[in-house]
Amino acid sequence: MEGRKVTGWAARDTSAILSPYSFHLRKTGPEDVLFKVLYCGVDHSDLHQLKNEIHFTTYPLVAGHEVVGEVMEVGSEVKKFNIGDIVGVGCIVGSCGECWCCKTNKEQYCSKMVFTYNAINNDGSFTQGGFSSAMVVHQNYVVNIPENLAPEQAAPLLCAGVTAFSPLKQFINSEEVIRAGILGLGGVGHLGVLIAKAMGHHVTVISSSDKKKHEALTDLGADCFLVSSNHDEMEKSLNSLDYILDTIPVSHQLQTYLPLLKVEGKIFIVGAAPEPLQFGASGLILGKKTISGSFIGSIEETQEILDFWVEKGLKTMIEVVKMDYVNKAFERMVKNDVRYRFVLDVAGSDLE
Amino acid sequence: MEGRKVTGWAARDTSAILSPYSFHLRKTGPEDVLFKVLYCGVDHSDLHQLKNEIHFTTYPLVAGHEVVGEVMEVGSEVKKFNIGDIVGVGCIVGSCGECWCCKTNKEQYCSKMVFTYNAINNDGSFTQGGFSSAMVVHQNYVVNIPENLAPEQAAPLLCAGVTAFSPLKQFINSEEVIRAGILGLGGVGHLGVLIAKAMGHHVTVISSSDKKKHEALTDLGADCFLVSSNHDEMEKSLNSLDYILDTIPVSHQLQTYLPLLKVEGKIFIVGAAPEPLQFGASGLILGKKTISGSFIGSIEETQEILDFWVEKGLKTMIEVVKMDYVNKAFERMVKNDVRYRFVLDVAGSDLE
Repeated sequence: MEGRKVTGWAARDTSAILSPYSFHLRKTGPEDVLFKVLYCGVDHSDLHQLKNEIHFTTYPLVAGHEVVGEVMEVGSEVKKFNIGDIVGVGCIVGSCGECWCCKTNKEQYCSKMVFTYNAINNDGSFTQGGFSSAMVVHQNYVVNIPENLAPEQAAPLLCAGVTAFSPLKQFINSEEVIRAGILGLGGVGHLGVLIAKAMGHHVTVISSSDKKKHEALTDLGADCFLVSSNHDEMEKSLNSLDYILDTIPVSHQLQTYLPLLKVEGKIFIVGAAPEPLQFGASGLILGKKTISGSFIGSIEETQEILDFWVEKGLKTMIEVVKMDYVNKAFERMVKNDVRYRFVLDVAGSDLE
Repeated sequence: MEGRKVTGWAARDTSAILSPYSFHLRKTGPEDVLFKVLYCGVDHSDLHQLKNEIHFTTYPLVAGHEVVGEVMEVGSEVKKFNIGDIVGVGCIVGSCGECWCCKTNKEQYCSKMVFTYNAINNDGSFTQGGFSSAMVVHQNYVVNIPENLAPEQAAPLLCAGVTAFSPLKQFINSEEVIRAGILGLGGVGHLGVLIAKAMGHHVTVISSSDKKKHEALTDLGADCFLVSSNHDEMEKSLNSLDYILDTIPVSHQLQTYLPLLKVEGKIFIVGAAPEPLQFGASGLILGKKTISGSFIGSIEETQEILDFWVEKGLKTMIEVVKMDYVNKAFERMVKNDVRYRFVLDVAGSDLE
């Protein structure tokens, strides 16, 4: 059932060069929300998909999974949202609704979870993302953007933000000062620093060089900066951290970082390095240490990080650009030339 | 301060051949318990130490860290134990008593933890283990053997038993039926099956061949037996287990077993393979799975497993032998020719 005709920016092939593309949304069903896209974040995983690096891309593909919009139409069964509301959509737009994961607010782990783009939705339609003038999404996968949060500020929280927040929220009410390590200072890592600081943690940024020392300490407010190649500094930091948020999406030596954890310390892996990761069993055993994976966050947690952000008065660090800059933005993102996230001003762009 | 002269069976060199050896215990201090050794379990790690495979063995060395004895003398400050009590000592006989680990009943992770043998105790004396006519141990590292538990039955619980119990006890009061996997069916693994069954778990033994199928299902009472090389069986068991107790002490492919875990499933590593272990980040992330190390158990947990054993009416499966059989017992243990643990009848042996 074809619905509204919209314009997105799509890649046609593995060059991943985006250009205008007209397509039809599905008709707004009884539980659907149709919204005009205002802003959309730009993430590394968008580029992986657009380049077909994960080997199941269908072209033309419209990426974008940190989407903030304004509601234009709601289905007859939609109670949570009204026309004019500012809403958000992250990485997923569907799941089975019936399994243990779905029933316990962990729908991102549902085996029938539907990605926001490049996936087949429950109604058989192909999903396209937020680099588009509008989207139709089932209400269960839509969150409210709080009134006091600028929509462009909200965008990176919908994927990168909740990815950092989900594993860290277990420490939110800790009575003792938690000592945190943040590994990697990209989209997820920089939000990890801000979230951990806002939770009252003592935050150490761990990096392979001292290039990012100033920004970590001054711009992001980290307490310490640890260069992993500096043997003496690393030695002094052994057994000092309650957790490490590991955001590195490429191959790296876990064994470098595990000794930094205290007894019962945890490392949270959120960046999916394609090569296997290694660790030494005895270090894990003798320190009762834990390596855990964590995938984005639930819809509930997405709402929580938005509310937390407002409550704590935090600011995402973003560079807002128009849609015709998106190809350049990808180029710069790959070179790590952005502090820390591009956000597309979709509604303010000429998409045609 | 030299105390009582005793006879142990010691290795003199890396041949690890044991023979009678006279030495002096330390004098029984105000907080010490002196006990006559009744029984002592025989473990793979004893042989590693006796062969100097961990590269810090001091000879002559008396091994043995699953020690059950009868109290013969107590120091003036000892309140918990009386002469004639049947007591147990496991892997550790000391720790600092002041750090966070010690203060939260996790003294096995204390950085100053003292191993039962081949270590320097807090008073500077060299520790020797339970293959000996008697031992002196600080009361804080001694547990009570319950009245209804035969002393030879208790021995394997003091290391192997608590090693399996410690990570599993978090599931002890689960309202839902927990689906357990036990990987490896040696000293720790067989007790893992018995403990998990006694906790009401649905237990699958995972093995590389079907050689142990009968004993797993019939002798130990496991519910299922899964051969890891059988692709179809493995496929059917994907995402089915709440936890896996991984007791394999040599190199193995974690990636074979991680897909068996449900979302939020946990694998507990208790066997210290010397080579690094590998896993794929994406599988861990997309299933919110956890790899945790766990090292023996605390003194408190050692008491708990002993009490649990009696409460549930369980039986360890042991082969009781005299001390002059110990070298043969090691030979057979290496060939996996024991169901499932040798226990030395120390008091019933001629040690001279």
